[in-house]
Amino acid sequence: MDERILLAHGSGGTLTHRLLREIVFPAFSNHVLDKCEDAAVVPLRGKCAFTTDSFVIQPLFFPGGDIGKLAVCGTVNDLAVMGARPAYMTAACIIEEGLRTAVFRKIVGSIAKAAKDAGVLIAGGDMKVVEKGACDKIFINTTGIGTITEGIRVSADNARPGDHVIINGTIGDHGAAVMSARKDYKLRSSIRSDCASLNGLIERLLNTVPRIRVMRDPTRGGVATTLKEIAVQSNVEITIEEDALPVTGPVRGFCEILGVDPLYMANEGKVLVFAPEEDARRVVSTMRKHALGRNAAVIGRVTRRCSSSDTPQVLLHTSIGSMRIIDMLSGEQLPRIC
Amino acid sequence: MDERILLAHGSGGTLTHRLLREIVFPAFSNHVLDKCEDAAVVPLRGKCAFTTDSFVIQPLFFPGGDIGKLAVCGTVNDLAVMGARPAYMTAACIIEEGLRTAVFRKIVGSIAKAAKDAGVLIAGGDMKVVEKGACDKIFINTTGIGTITEGIRVSADNARPGDHVIINGTIGDHGAAVMSARKDYKLRSSIRSDCASLNGLIERLLNTVPRIRVMRDPTRGGVATTLKEIAVQSNVEITIEEDALPVTGPVRGFCEILGVDPLYMANEGKVLVFAPEEDARRVVSTMRKHALGRNAAVIGRVTRRCSSSDTPQVLLHTSIGSMRIIDMLSGEQLPRIC
Repeated sequence: MDERILLAHGSGGTLTHRLLREIVFPAFSNHVLDKCEDAAVVPLRGKCAFTTDSFVIQPLFFPGGDIGKLAVCGTVNDLAVMGARPAYMTAACIIEEGLRTAVFRKIVGSIAKAAKDAGVLIAGGDMKVVEKGACDKIFINTTGIGTITEGIRVSADNARPGDHVIINGTIGDHGAAVMSARKDYKLRSSIRSDCASLNGLIERLLNTVPRIRVMRDPTRGGVATTLKEIAVQSNVEITIEEDALPVTGPVRGFCEILGVDPLYMANEGKVLVFAPEEDARRVVSTMRKHALGRNAAVIGRVTRRCSSSDTPQVLLHTSIGSMRIIDMLSGEQLPRIC
Repeated sequence: MDERILLAHGSGGTLTHRLLREIVFPAFSNHVLDKCEDAAVVPLRGKCAFTTDSFVIQPLFFPGGDIGKLAVCGTVNDLAVMGARPAYMTAACIIEEGLRTAVFRKIVGSIAKAAKDAGVLIAGGDMKVVEKGACDKIFINTTGIGTITEGIRVSADNARPGDHVIINGTIGDHGAAVMSARKDYKLRSSIRSDCASLNGLIERLLNTVPRIRVMRDPTRGGVATTLKEIAVQSNVEITIEEDALPVTGPVRGFCEILGVDPLYMANEGKVLVFAPEEDARRVVSTMRKHALGRNAAVIGRVTRRCSSSDTPQVLLHTSIGSMRIIDMLSGEQLPRIC
């Protein structure tokens, strides 16, 4: 098969319609999309979460996933960490002229499978084709909407002194998998991305521990950057224990070789949960019963509320007993990680 | 000013936060976005319209608009033609490393102004930066959501024999403006894009003529392609009158020089309305009272319902009295028109 996407596939005319008919609609077919209107019509009620993300990851296919799966999981997770049940999603592709049709078909298939697995409906989409050299193969934007259950109140400004900080598993897997998949690193490893939709796990968590205060998925910038954001938004100091951070052997080895810190590496199937101390054990045990939470652990806690005069910090209590200030990622560790 | 966007501005770390703080948040500031959560939390109720579009237009700035204004108007119009009142929108940018910060700032300003003019709230966003050569300057995705008023039922499958086809003004302006702005055409003209948000006009129309059956904005592929889509979806034959098509003198001249047909040229501030014959005059007069409908005209009508055996056609009754079959755009007239 050596068919390729042509500029005319993005014209809005006959070739666009053919591509939609042959590849896109069969993959996504559902009662909303099949209406073929300029906008999907969907019923919604109450407080909704609404989020967008563009995906420019390179390479398109990596151990543990591809750009299609990632584009769905990323947006599903951004809804889920707000306590929302993902309902509808749009998918918009910008394609470089000359992309092999088989590659496009495979990515569309991944989007469809990931959406089905997460229980989210692809309600609409868009396709643009740009001339060779004007983009790198394919970029995908997904935008999702979900409904927030009455009574749920999770927010990044909601962390309080005494809260425990819990993560559902090992850190840095996505970043390391993508790094090692880049040809220019010439590294082979068994590391796979953790790319996964967390809405199932999170729904179970919220049912078990409705008092969860903060949830965030530590993607770009890693656990370090996300914790710093939460510290600032909640105006608290957070202390994490280096020894408690779950990192797989291969990722640890990989980071040592390249001199990078797993705390700053992207995750695509992890959630940081802040819960009152008395609920922490239940959060961990609920996570561990779920396939995506087997290595859940308490990694730290909120040590104090900050006064108006000091800057909210994240502190790392290291293995050798020292304290290190953890700041946001500065510079760029690895472009196009998602 | 010679600052440029760096890869690290897309890292999710300190430079991302600085760019957001200095350029993005001041432009869009509102009670939803300012929460800085992973997803916006918005109240919604009832039937909603949900639509996405990516914008890759080249050049970024053209007579009558720029990619920022276009990105807002395009999505606002896709909601409005479904009878929805646009409420919330996300904006996601993919930026090429090296883009001048001043250009980004100007585009962000255009998005903010267009959103304010249309009465839609920018509820969320995303920013990715890719290395030089991996995209062409900047691509923008907007995804919008709006609520549909009880009782409104417009749909592309709703055209019926006898319906009149009405447009709110001249055709081909956007396509001609972008074509003439491309350096490689070496053409100078007074043609300006019609890029505009139609939700105000459409709301007034629906209040005056609630029985409107179909609305669509003829963007990529032009009036011809959109009418063909409606013919197929409603299973009807549509006949339009060449003499009735509003085209400005400059656009007509431009099309003659380049040998292109205004019927296939993109519009970004036009809506095709199908209404029962007895309502057609009221549609036209309501349009003409609005700044965006001064040149409104009836351009044709639905001539018959098709039987199961024949293909729904769009026919053009030409100035010289002949009939021509109008098909969808085949091939690509002009890549990256939106």
